[in-house]
Amino acid sequence: MNTKKKIVRGGTLVSATGITAGDLLIVGEKIAAQAAPGILDAAAVDEVIDAQGMLVLPGLIDPHVHFNSPFMGTVTVHDYENGTQAAAFGGVTTIIDFSTQPKGGSLLANLEQKEEEARGRTYIDWSMHGILLDAGTQTLAEIPELIQEGVPTYKCFTTYKHAQRMVQDDDIVALLEVTARHGGMLMVHCENDSIIEYSIRQALAAGNYAPIYHARTRPPEAENIAIQRVVDLMRQVTAPVYIVHTSTAQSVEIIAKARMDGLPLHSETCTHYLALTEEYLLGPKGNFYICSPPLRKQADVDALWQAARAGFLEVVSTDDAGVPPEDNLRLSQGRFDKTPNGIASIETRLDILHSEGVCKGKITWPQLVALTSTNPARLFGLYPQKGHLAPGADADLVLYNPNSKWIMGAEVLHMNTSFCPFEGWEISGQVDSVLVRGQDVIRNRKLVGQPGFGRRVFRRLEA
Amino acid sequence: MNTKKKIVRGGTLVSATGITAGDLLIVGEKIAAQAAPGILDAAAVDEVIDAQGMLVLPGLIDPHVHFNSPFMGTVTVHDYENGTQAAAFGGVTTIIDFSTQPKGGSLLANLEQKEEEARGRTYIDWSMHGILLDAGTQTLAEIPELIQEGVPTYKCFTTYKHAQRMVQDDDIVALLEVTARHGGMLMVHCENDSIIEYSIRQALAAGNYAPIYHARTRPPEAENIAIQRVVDLMRQVTAPVYIVHTSTAQSVEIIAKARMDGLPLHSETCTHYLALTEEYLLGPKGNFYICSPPLRKQADVDALWQAARAGFLEVVSTDDAGVPPEDNLRLSQGRFDKTPNGIASIETRLDILHSEGVCKGKITWPQLVALTSTNPARLFGLYPQKGHLAPGADADLVLYNPNSKWIMGAEVLHMNTSFCPFEGWEISGQVDSVLVRGQDVIRNRKLVGQPGFGRRVFRRLEA
Amino acid sequence: MNTKKKIVRGGTLVSATGITAGDLLIVGEKIAAQAAPGILDAAAVDEVIDAQGMLVLPGLIDPHVHFNSPFMGTVTVHDYENGTQAAAFGGVTTIIDFSTQPKGGSLLANLEQKEEEARGRTYIDWSMHGILLDAGTQTLAEIPELIQEGVPTYKCFTTYKHAQRMVQDDDIVALLEVTARHGGMLMVHCENDSIIEYSIRQALAAGNYAPIYHARTRPPEAENIAIQRVVDLMRQVTAPVYIVHTSTAQSVEIIAKARMDGLPLHSETCTHYLALTEEYLLGPKGNFYICSPPLRKQADVDALWQAARAGFLEVVSTDDAGVPPEDNLRLSQGRFDKTPNGIASIETRLDILHSEGVCKGKITWPQLVALTSTNPARLFGLYPQKGHLAPGADADLVLYNPNSKWIMGAEVLHMNTSFCPFEGWEISGQVDSVLVRGQDVIRNRKLVGQPGFGRRVFRRLEA
Amino acid sequence: MNTKKKIVRGGTLVSATGITAGDLLIVGEKIAAQAAPGILDAAAVDEVIDAQGMLVLPGLIDPHVHFNSPFMGTVTVHDYENGTQAAAFGGVTTIIDFSTQPKGGSLLANLEQKEEEARGRTYIDWSMHGILLDAGTQTLAEIPELIQEGVPTYKCFTTYKHAQRMVQDDDIVALLEVTARHGGMLMVHCENDSIIEYSIRQALAAGNYAPIYHARTRPPEAENIAIQRVVDLMRQVTAPVYIVHTSTAQSVEIIAKARMDGLPLHSETCTHYLALTEEYLLGPKGNFYICSPPLRKQADVDALWQAARAGFLEVVSTDDAGVPPEDNLRLSQGRFDKTPNGIASIETRLDILHSEGVCKGKITWPQLVALTSTNPARLFGLYPQKGHLAPGADADLVLYNPNSKWIMGAEVLHMNTSFCPFEGWEISGQVDSVLVRGQDVIRNRKLVGQPGFGRRVFRRLEA
Repeated sequence: MNTKKKIVRGGTLVSATGITAGDLLIVGEKIAAQAAPGILDAAAVDEVIDAQGMLVLPGLIDPHVHFNSPFMGTVTVHDYENGTQAAAFGGVTTIIDFSTQPKGGSLLANLEQKEEEARGRTYIDWSMHGILLDAGTQTLAEIPELIQEGVPTYKCFTTYKHAQRMVQDDDIVALLEVTARHGGMLMVHCENDSIIEYSIRQALAAGNYAPIYHARTRPPEAENIAIQRVVDLMRQVTAPVYIVHTSTAQSVEIIAKARMDGLPLHSETCTHYLALTEEYLLGPKGNFYICSPPLRKQADVDALWQAARAGFLEVVSTDDAGVPPEDNLRLSQGRFDKTPNGIASIETRLDILHSEGVCKGKITWPQLVALTSTNPARLFGLYPQKGHLAPGADADLVLYNPNSKWIMGAEVLHMNTSFCPFEGWEISGQVDSVLVRGQDVIRNRKLVGQPGFGRRVFRRLEA
Repeated sequence: MNTKKKIVRGGTLVSATGITAGDLLIVGEKIAAQAAPGILDAAAVDEVIDAQGMLVLPGLIDPHVHFNSPFMGTVTVHDYENGTQAAAFGGVTTIIDFSTQPKGGSLLANLEQKEEEARGRTYIDWSMHGILLDAGTQTLAEIPELIQEGVPTYKCFTTYKHAQRMVQDDDIVALLEVTARHGGMLMVHCENDSIIEYSIRQALAAGNYAPIYHARTRPPEAENIAIQRVVDLMRQVTAPVYIVHTSTAQSVEIIAKARMDGLPLHSETCTHYLALTEEYLLGPKGNFYICSPPLRKQADVDALWQAARAGFLEVVSTDDAGVPPEDNLRLSQGRFDKTPNGIASIETRLDILHSEGVCKGKITWPQLVALTSTNPARLFGLYPQKGHLAPGADADLVLYNPNSKWIMGAEVLHMNTSFCPFEGWEISGQVDSVLVRGQDVIRNRKLVGQPGFGRRVFRRLEA
Repeated sequence: MNTKKKIVRGGTLVSATGITAGDLLIVGEKIAAQAAPGILDAAAVDEVIDAQGMLVLPGLIDPHVHFNSPFMGTVTVHDYENGTQAAAFGGVTTIIDFSTQPKGGSLLANLEQKEEEARGRTYIDWSMHGILLDAGTQTLAEIPELIQEGVPTYKCFTTYKHAQRMVQDDDIVALLEVTARHGGMLMVHCENDSIIEYSIRQALAAGNYAPIYHARTRPPEAENIAIQRVVDLMRQVTAPVYIVHTSTAQSVEIIAKARMDGLPLHSETCTHYLALTEEYLLGPKGNFYICSPPLRKQADVDALWQAARAGFLEVVSTDDAGVPPEDNLRLSQGRFDKTPNGIASIETRLDILHSEGVCKGKITWPQLVALTSTNPARLFGLYPQKGHLAPGADADLVLYNPNSKWIMGAEVLHMNTSFCPFEGWEISGQVDSVLVRGQDVIRNRKLVGQPGFGRRVFRRLEA
Repeated sequence: MNTKKKIVRGGTLVSATGITAGDLLIVGEKIAAQAAPGILDAAAVDEVIDAQGMLVLPGLIDPHVHFNSPFMGTVTVHDYENGTQAAAFGGVTTIIDFSTQPKGGSLLANLEQKEEEARGRTYIDWSMHGILLDAGTQTLAEIPELIQEGVPTYKCFTTYKHAQRMVQDDDIVALLEVTARHGGMLMVHCENDSIIEYSIRQALAAGNYAPIYHARTRPPEAENIAIQRVVDLMRQVTAPVYIVHTSTAQSVEIIAKARMDGLPLHSETCTHYLALTEEYLLGPKGNFYICSPPLRKQADVDALWQAARAGFLEVVSTDDAGVPPEDNLRLSQGRFDKTPNGIASIETRLDILHSEGVCKGKITWPQLVALTSTNPARLFGLYPQKGHLAPGADADLVLYNPNSKWIMGAEVLHMNTSFCPFEGWEISGQVDSVLVRGQDVIRNRKLVGQPGFGRRVFRRLEA
């Protein structure tokens, strides 16, 4: 058993509720103490990590990534090795990926295969959600079983009818029932399919093929309406729900209203919805900015920041789903509707939230920690093991240098793609070191961890 | 200088974000470390306080009390000595009282007098808000000066026109401007005077004098409308505002909506609005339950709990303003409109919130701590000195025994009144010990502190 | 050509905008003049109808009836002869019935057959709407053709999935597109199927079979949500829509909001939703009060009256769909979910609206005329031929005696059923005489018309 | 007694519910019959007025004019002779002006004087509203008396505090009570004074004096909030209210919501809010476009049209209050806050509503008639004497030529001012002839009436 003792000394500890100067004592895989400066005895430990000038954060959690994932004729750019390596460089110490039920088939079987892909390959800890395409007898029977095995969260889609992924109201009702009864939570990708299909028909009929039409044919209303529908069903069938990648100003209002009424509704947005607008779809690399929901307008961006600050929007994830740039070009052939959707972003979340959020006064550091670590830990059943710096928790730590200045770009990042949506942006702040369960993974901006060190985490939702 | 070292050992630490087993190290007046069990060396300290079986909370803050306060022909039951003693028994380590501007006179002069009353008499730390009756030249000049002296928060009334306390829109606009510009915050007692006066005229004309008519002539709409008006003005003059004693379901909606829109609007409710309904006004002791706003209906109570759980409503205070029971009877003469308003409650908040809230699943322990300690500390400029258990903060602690069972009543409480609104209620949980800045004030349910130990706290609001 | 001249003398003329004493001149099938008393020359005409003491109304239009209609194992009680005879006794001079597309088949074919049923049998004028079960290629092709033939209005269902009648979002989008493009209007029966099916499963599982569970398993939300969805789609695909049988307080709010936003949304309620509550489902004849949507609560009834008065809700129809009482009993076997839905009401609308509405101050006479004649005429393409008393319009008239007092019951009514939902009610006001295109159908409360006199009316919607 | 008979032949009759070809018979001062073409016998009458090609409308009513009215150092441009002459050229057959209570004095006395000014001078019929500056004992006593004398409507202001015209909540409550009890109606000018004064202080401090700052310092919120407040009070004290000159998109929403909830709330907008935007304040003649509320943005204009079409906004008046252009320049001295407010518009309403509304598809002809004649007649107690074309009503008629094309400008209009806000606009449609109580006032675009023909109209509100 690992009983090595370390002190992280001289840093500024950031939790979801505040900032304080202090030192951390690590014993083995766990945090053992948090102390005012000068209290911990350096002589009594195996190692002292100098955190002078650094912010010390609980390791980030990314509850929305797509590794090794086939979609629209290609496969996402990250696998479990290169993806978790890039994640670590971005301060992430735990990811949650998805296993997708084959149409009409068994989620259980797919999950075993997907976990096999991850096992022994990751630098950091990991878990899986399920994706459900139906609410048939087998599906409803497998869910309670999987919840027992530490997989309590399931996603479904209100769109992608053409890809046979869409569920209808009665499926959602059935999934709400079963997840709620067995201690699970339903995640929903909310976009109204009929509005999108109607809009695409109209755009194509008018000869509008450019990337911007991806945004124009997936209007905010398509998302808002779909969220409202889930809320409406939740009022009948009380069950926890997590809306993935909310992107519009009004969606936030709908969610806030529902929460105010006591519904157990949660939501995330993603890095790109907080930092980019649909203007990028008009640029020369517009086709690489195609993702779903699409990038929105500045008023939406502003509303999302506001919601994050106000605490209505609880999580910022990445929805990392990079499309190989050559596949983007090959498959799209200049048509927005044929372009594979998705942006690689597993590494950039912390820096963008710091540069664009904290440095510009939109959120505070404690809020950043809540959005990326404490809240996802609580919502997805990782807390109190992960998501905070309290004694007893896993020693998943990020030492962050808030004063570093650098230019972001695909060359300096570690993601497996030549496209970076923030190419050339001036960034303030950088990950210096990362520990997972007390073990160095990144030290002074160098990779020192090992693939396979990461463990599957058993998740159980809070009551 | 006090450098005495103490360990609080074996307790369960409760913060606004979570619960964890752990020990605390106190050095002098401050918390020096928080550690996992078994890490801190008991041999190296002056005292070990056994917290086995106890919850260890940051000391409670009560930002809304009225000590030594004249109103409607009587004076509130608590002075700074007996009031802070009762407060300590209720787990409170800091109070904020009010100094009232004389009509047309100087707040500054009154504040000096009021602080003189408190100085040297309290068992716990204390501060003052100002109450403003006008927005005249002198008032507007004094505010920046007082903010510099650590008094950044000011209350005004939208009612009590007959008592010459009501301010109008243009006063509120001026007060918003000046407090915002100088780093202060306006607190507003929101009830629409014209609706109340109209309703009272109608009730008296119909011969309706009973206590229940206090509630019926101060309808929820009177409060809701007044809050909406403040919100409307805030949309023009951006300035932080804190709504005192919200009591209705719709007020919470108005506040949540405003917050969702990014307005810096905060609010509290009080113990009695969470635990009592207007039914009590119909009982034999109805006249003792008269307070303003009045007790409401069960649906309002439910909405307030829901808002507290959802984080929209940020503080639970007491509005401690007990009327001597004999004065209540002498002055009211059977008429609701002549009955002095107010309930003594400085001691009961923690137990009621635990028994009625935590034990009944309405809020969690971390939420209770946020509502009564962390949030008021942050909102009223006491943080990071007070309001949490992190190293560096004042060692204001409560050891709370969650398993104690007892019957609440005026006899067993320590408040200076023979009336207890919760007489005979079965309570779960009890304060065992209280430390203020590392010093024992209550130890094992016995008073061990000294009047005069409490200090005036300089307050400065977060940017 | 009929050029017979008649004067309706001494009555009080009621239009949608006001009431005035006056005489009418009829020449042939048309109204030729409206005059102040004493102006028209009685000597110059063939007949003078004495309307002293009578209100003279434009003939009522009933745009929602189900004659000869199979449903849930039975057939509705009225055919075109007995149904239009009862209609005439209720002051109705035009009905619009429905032709239902066979699943997967041709609406056109069914319409021809249905029109054949009506032709030569009715006492009053008539037309048909189409009911659509899909939005397939054939359906979309037939609609423009039928609009050209005077059938511009089509109904679809958001429920009855088990009966294969439910359409989904993409069907609705397609139907909105095609009707709007060709000058038609979509009517929608709005109830969310998944909520109802979920609720029924729960009720049956709990052994709840009584009639009241019909109402409890079709909660107001099922209707409200379904209406909101149609509104949401209308915001994408601008097209006129008519919501049939709205029954809830909130549905009216949704509709009013949409109209305020400029959407071409219209709605009706039915006699029973204005006069009855779900309490009737608890009575000994509860099973005969089962209809869909179900009877609601008093607050809903009040809101519907209020909406009618305010002009947001534009039409009161009957949804006449009486179930033979013996079939009700035979098929239901004591289970609400097996009971055929529907109430016979073709004759009672005017008297109930007068007794319960006008006499109780809920609506005015001009509003009653608007709701039952002028508005349906305008909305369904019958205006200016029908729906008002202006010169040039069809001489469809009702002479109504507002002072008659009588007891309603199945015995004194003329509908083909032994069940009357208003059995024993005291009624104020009664139809005295009815003219269709200048011809007597009812004279002094006696039937004088002939089956087959009624004509198919070609309908074309206003631009 | 006048028993002269006239026929208005060959015109198209426009009522609030529809359009029909027809002739009118006039006997003396009243309409005696409305007939289909060819029915009335021309030989039997004294005169046949040829209305071929003309629309025949009920005479317009203008319930909001300011004649002979002192304000901000000047007097409005119209007196009772030249004002009613211009009105007649605009198709107006009845005006309602205002008598203002002197501060602290008697409305009754002022009304007598004001009526004396009007008597014997007008070309058309007239009446007066009262304006109240307080709710004192005398005021409350005079109101019932004046209602008995045919003056049932009273206006108050929520702004103009500096001019001592503002009333507070408790005044409004008292005025609601007394008007409702005695069959009157309160009209309210809604703008929040504190927001405006705050905004003006800020603008002047920043050196912003230009006309556009009139709009920027009276933001839409100032109006919206003030309307919301009146609505809030109405929910406590049920009483009919009429909001004058609503100008914002949100005000319409507030009003619609209140009406939907059953409150007896009515509202008007004015010609200029439907046809002009604040852009005009930026032009070279910007100072002449200063009125209160100010001109708004295009989105507001669109919302007002929409509300008019939907029937939520019931009246379009003129708020005719022209400032002599030379006084505008002399008094303003280049400062928006010193510029007298008001626009002369008594003559232009019908043409602008036709050209900008009917011709552009925003409203229909029946809606135009409802907004300018039928609705004001009903709301202000002139119906059924005025406001429609039914037999029995006053023969107040406008023959309108919808095909006339002309250029509007001060030169061709008949108002007493050299400034026309629509100078140079191309207009479709023109008043050809006007009858008041059967008597020609304008015939073929020539003035043929006499000053002094107009009568005071006794008004009594509908129950």
